[in-house]
Amino acid sequence: MIRTIFLTGSAMLGVALALPSVATEGQRAWTLDDQLTVPEIRTLAIAADGMSAVYVVRIADRASDKTVAVLRHLDLASGKTRELLRAAWIEDLRRIPGTADWSARIERGEGVQLYRIAANGAVAPIVVHPATAIYGDSEGATYLAYGHAPLPTGVRSYSWSPDGRWLWYVVLDAERYHRKIRYDADVASERAQRRSPGRATALIFLRDPQGKDRLLAKRPHGDISTFFGRSFVRWEKGEVQYDVMEVDVDGRQHTMTMAASLPTGTSRIVENRAKRGYWRLTGPRGGKLSSEGFGMTRDLIETLPDGRKQNYGRFPFAVGDGRAVGGFISADGKRAIAGFRTVDNPRFGLAVIEGTAARAIGGAASLNHCDFTAALDRGVCIAQSQALAPAVVSIDVNRGSTRRIASIAPAHETIAPLRTEPRTWVNRNDSKATGYIIWPRGYTKGKRYPAIVITHGTDADERFANQENQWEYPAQIFAERGYVVLLMNVPFSTQSAESRAVYETWVNETKDRSPRQVQDRIWLNDTASFEDAVSELIGAGVVDPARVGIAGYSRGSQSVNVTMTQSQMFRAASSGDGGYLEPAFYPSLSASYDSVYGGPPTDPAALPNYLRMAPSLRGKEACGAMLLQMATPYSASIDLYSALRKATIPAQITLYPGEDAASDETHIFHIPSNRMKAMEENIAWFDYWLLGKRNPSSPFAHRYGEWDKMRMSATRTCDGSKSAPPG
Amino acid sequence: MIRTIFLTGSAMLGVALALPSVATEGQRAWTLDDQLTVPEIRTLAIAADGMSAVYVVRIADRASDKTVAVLRHLDLASGKTRELLRAAWIEDLRRIPGTADWSARIERGEGVQLYRIAANGAVAPIVVHPATAIYGDSEGATYLAYGHAPLPTGVRSYSWSPDGRWLWYVVLDAERYHRKIRYDADVASERAQRRSPGRATALIFLRDPQGKDRLLAKRPHGDISTFFGRSFVRWEKGEVQYDVMEVDVDGRQHTMTMAASLPTGTSRIVENRAKRGYWRLTGPRGGKLSSEGFGMTRDLIETLPDGRKQNYGRFPFAVGDGRAVGGFISADGKRAIAGFRTVDNPRFGLAVIEGTAARAIGGAASLNHCDFTAALDRGVCIAQSQALAPAVVSIDVNRGSTRRIASIAPAHETIAPLRTEPRTWVNRNDSKATGYIIWPRGYTKGKRYPAIVITHGTDADERFANQENQWEYPAQIFAERGYVVLLMNVPFSTQSAESRAVYETWVNETKDRSPRQVQDRIWLNDTASFEDAVSELIGAGVVDPARVGIAGYSRGSQSVNVTMTQSQMFRAASSGDGGYLEPAFYPSLSASYDSVYGGPPTDPAALPNYLRMAPSLRGKEACGAMLLQMATPYSASIDLYSALRKATIPAQITLYPGEDAASDETHIFHIPSNRMKAMEENIAWFDYWLLGKRNPSSPFAHRYGEWDKMRMSATRTCDGSKSAPPG
Repeated sequence: MIRTIFLTGSAMLGVALALPSVATEGQRAWTLDDQLTVPEIRTLAIAADGMSAVYVVRIADRASDKTVAVLRHLDLASGKTRELLRAAWIEDLRRIPGTADWSARIERGEGVQLYRIAANGAVAPIVVHPATAIYGDSEGATYLAYGHAPLPTGVRSYSWSPDGRWLWYVVLDAERYHRKIRYDADVASERAQRRSPGRATALIFLRDPQGKDRLLAKRPHGDISTFFGRSFVRWEKGEVQYDVMEVDVDGRQHTMTMAASLPTGTSRIVENRAKRGYWRLTGPRGGKLSSEGFGMTRDLIETLPDGRKQNYGRFPFAVGDGRAVGGFISADGKRAIAGFRTVDNPRFGLAVIEGTAARAIGGAASLNHCDFTAALDRGVCIAQSQALAPAVVSIDVNRGSTRRIASIAPAHETIAPLRTEPRTWVNRNDSKATGYIIWPRGYTKGKRYPAIVITHGTDADERFANQENQWEYPAQIFAERGYVVLLMNVPFSTQSAESRAVYETWVNETKDRSPRQVQDRIWLNDTASFEDAVSELIGAGVVDPARVGIAGYSRGSQSVNVTMTQSQMFRAASSGDGGYLEPAFYPSLSASYDSVYGGPPTDPAALPNYLRMAPSLRGKEACGAMLLQMATPYSASIDLYSALRKATIPAQITLYPGEDAASDETHIFHIPSNRMKAMEENIAWFDYWLLGKRNPSSPFAHRYGEWDKMRMSATRTCDGSKSAPPG
Repeated sequence: MIRTIFLTGSAMLGVALALPSVATEGQRAWTLDDQLTVPEIRTLAIAADGMSAVYVVRIADRASDKTVAVLRHLDLASGKTRELLRAAWIEDLRRIPGTADWSARIERGEGVQLYRIAANGAVAPIVVHPATAIYGDSEGATYLAYGHAPLPTGVRSYSWSPDGRWLWYVVLDAERYHRKIRYDADVASERAQRRSPGRATALIFLRDPQGKDRLLAKRPHGDISTFFGRSFVRWEKGEVQYDVMEVDVDGRQHTMTMAASLPTGTSRIVENRAKRGYWRLTGPRGGKLSSEGFGMTRDLIETLPDGRKQNYGRFPFAVGDGRAVGGFISADGKRAIAGFRTVDNPRFGLAVIEGTAARAIGGAASLNHCDFTAALDRGVCIAQSQALAPAVVSIDVNRGSTRRIASIAPAHETIAPLRTEPRTWVNRNDSKATGYIIWPRGYTKGKRYPAIVITHGTDADERFANQENQWEYPAQIFAERGYVVLLMNVPFSTQSAESRAVYETWVNETKDRSPRQVQDRIWLNDTASFEDAVSELIGAGVVDPARVGIAGYSRGSQSVNVTMTQSQMFRAASSGDGGYLEPAFYPSLSASYDSVYGGPPTDPAALPNYLRMAPSLRGKEACGAMLLQMATPYSASIDLYSALRKATIPAQITLYPGEDAASDETHIFHIPSNRMKAMEENIAWFDYWLLGKRNPSSPFAHRYGEWDKMRMSATRTCDGSKSAPPG
């Protein structure tokens, strides 16, 4: 029955979101430029009257070599899209209650400030605070960036009261550099630092209906709730409530909820030690929504304030995933909407919860980045899938139906979609891993193809050529070039209680499971999944066992680095900007490493655990050529590179530069020329090592000489065998 | 006989350089300001007519908080000293042949450039090259600094032809930052970097008598011979010869000697692979002077170009020490002067070699920084000792006599000298270590005193409160405050062939001796020397065994860190800006560590060698309170700090700041306020941990609370026992 509800929603959406016709005329293959210019959706808001919406995408602009933010207005009736604004950065787009205007944090040359945007596109300042602090991977930055150029930031976050008359906001002031002696923890923190950090303080203000600002609090640099815009602001009973982070006597941070009275201006502590997650999903009974249980379906539960639980049934999805839409609650409190992610063929949808029932909206495509009117009767979402470029859809919540309004990536709709097949692989350890096979264009049965596994932990799902998953591994171009591409997730942690316990040991840095169990059930099990998935395709006559590669960045680089030093199946690899698991990071990550390895590498009892899995200690076990693409020259990655070269394994470490000498490229690359080069380097690397192909016009053709030398001097080649559990 | 020669010179000098009378009236005790303002002698030159000399000292200037360079002119007949110039930097002071003027590299606001200085003090530019490159511990610096603020440098080195008509010089051009992808070794080099380095190229020019410049060579950033001003320039037979560094096919550098013809301008390679040491001592037979043998006396040898050897006899000194005066050869080639350092009670003097005989000039005081007339008949030197503040002396080479001309540190001559006693200690391993006891002022026999050992490898010798030896450990102030101070060298490597072989294993990064032998004979033997020297004073009733501390920076920090994790004799220590021996530095120093430890710390065969001596792995063996004063937040030192704290050992790591956010204090501190603070911190630290004293007006009084906490929570105290050879 539950399954039926889900399928109903799915089927309905299917109608509205059918693939564009795959007629070959007028359609074309993927280009590198397409890979680069897939828009990243940042923020979306529906008008109060539900007649229009605005949204922001970030798109690589090759001319300026910047990733720029574009604000577009969409008429939901006509589907007409207008570009309102183009700027270095636009975020936190919201309607201003009681008006037809919008507000957003925008960088238009004065740092990130708060502006009002009229429906005609006119932009006017609301709060401009010139004493900015920098977020970025640069010298003097207050905090690191995730995927953007160093960003001077005046306004960090804001919230309108429900009537739009009051404004709560946070501004930042960089502290001037003071030459001073530092001690102990302030020195030890340098161990993990590449760039000299700056410091800032945050000021929290409340602006009253007359436009008068009242300072509510001055917050220190260490209050990450305030500095990361994660202070959940609630407007309740004549006061505004917000969260700050306070430091315990033992040095740990906890959340404290403050309130400021609107009429009197007095402040009070609502809760000294508030329990807050990053993600808050409120249910129709005022409780907290979550999904519980293991396996392919989960119970949708509301935990009430008194601790009792309301079970809305068992569904093939989970709410609470950080990538799904967050939680909405209707103005009357009776309807809740929570974003979900399906367990199998991972995609995003909406759970609508009313009374004692829950139903799903969503289907073949994912619904991401939604916004709703106050009554939660109408909404807009971004719909996308592996094959469908993102489009805005409108949602009729009562009917559970969706309607496609307009594309947000029209150029990508002219590409003939590649055949992309969702799969759930079961490996030798009975672990399930989800993912997709992208078939080479014009795949011919019976012919064996080269293959590349691309992995980033759990980000392979129904999103369109998602940079967070693919990074600079151009999966679609690889398929165009004749590779079978496996976009593979690692086995999901919630498939069994034991698997979850192992992951929790790692994530919570406990000793609940032994280091060997943690290694075996996480990274060595990832390797088993990759091997077994590839084996299946080899067995089916699809993949040529002598031409298999693997790629992954960040969490994926862990899987890649372990796989390449355990398995003989992968002739080439590309590992992106990661070094976790290497001994060099022990001092910065000792609690985490203690769970994985049982102690520091210089502890004779722990060293065997390092020797069995730390990639840089297993250079002699490697055989395939490894490319390490870096945004930052991590010591750990340099160690891996050095170990591989010492063992005569072909290896290259490539550092992509930042904007200038004082800044770095970010973990998620943001400089278009770096992104293009990194993709070209991956193509050149896999073509060379898997296919023996050279392209004289590749920007990396000058490296072939080095690669030839490494190939000639390699004393070992891969025999194609699978990994055996290390001793 | 030889001994007689030596003693003769010594006795003669003794007359001229007798200590100022130690009458207590008009004299005073040392102050911290005295410690700070001991002048550092940089460069000295005698006029061609031998009538005058100029010299440069660097002195801390508290008002500007800079260390400034002062150029002084001295009339040798009258002893009258005039200050000619004060600037940020003055170096390479030389007479301009054929004129009465001088030249020097000076930073007077345009970067370091080459200037002419008239006898009246007028300064005029000779070469000003605005495209400077920075030497300093700062972001964007071309090369690191040794002990000065970031120094933009236009002219790096220069040489006048013997007739003064031609000028050979090197200028530097910083390269603009180019955003580019980097590979492999260019990425791996980042592992050891704290600040983003800049790059530069060097241009070598020859200026002809008409003032026309000819470009001889453009040298790359990696040519350290050119970039460090170590290109020995010879003017021979119508050409100028100079050395550059070239890179072999195997990546190693070698010296190549080039020549440019003065008349024709053509260049030729003189020697493709020249054998050059940093230090060149030419003998009267055109050979190379050196000291050979082991023990307390050495043979003075000239190795002729054909390989034959001329032995000038056995002396209680060695030539070729980098801290001694370099080599001079008379215009007629018949007389050579080479600086020496005595083996016992280490002090500096001059060996004069003529015919088949050698004789010594020098005695109770050291002669450093000498210059001579072309005939080598007259000269000037700086004379100084532990007790004697530096003064200029004139040298009559024929008579072997010296005459005091003028003090260069008059303020320091008003201090009543502390009793400083040279000692040679023989430890339990029969190893000799030289050094000095500075007795507390007003020492009373029969009373037990607290003691502090101060060590910096081999820099304890007859120089006056030398910063390179004492760093920011105010030895004289400690003696004024009632501490017995032992300025101790580590056992000298040349005392036996075996000791030398062990040191060469370490320095040359070979495997001639086993890691255990290297550890036992170097650092563990240092510890034995410190312990046995202190024991002797304890046995003599001089030192209170419960109040003994130890301090050392750089090489000394190695000794201190090992001693504090092997011995229970030292209740407190201060270790300065060093981290060598810690596992964290393995990747940057692998060849050196392989000699000391036998491999990386993650090699199960090598790990036991780390466990027996790497200080950060022996936190549990420590007992005394350790202060780590840093110019740079070395990962290795942070690891030691963390290990000590984890083992509940009282420890503090203190980072002294650079000029600004983008630069660091240098290994030899150069910021006067940092120097004062570091000395005050050492006083507060030893007073607190050895004497239990607090000084409420110390700038570190705010740390007592932390120290109290560490003292209370320490689970172990020192039992006073000596180190046992580790397993």
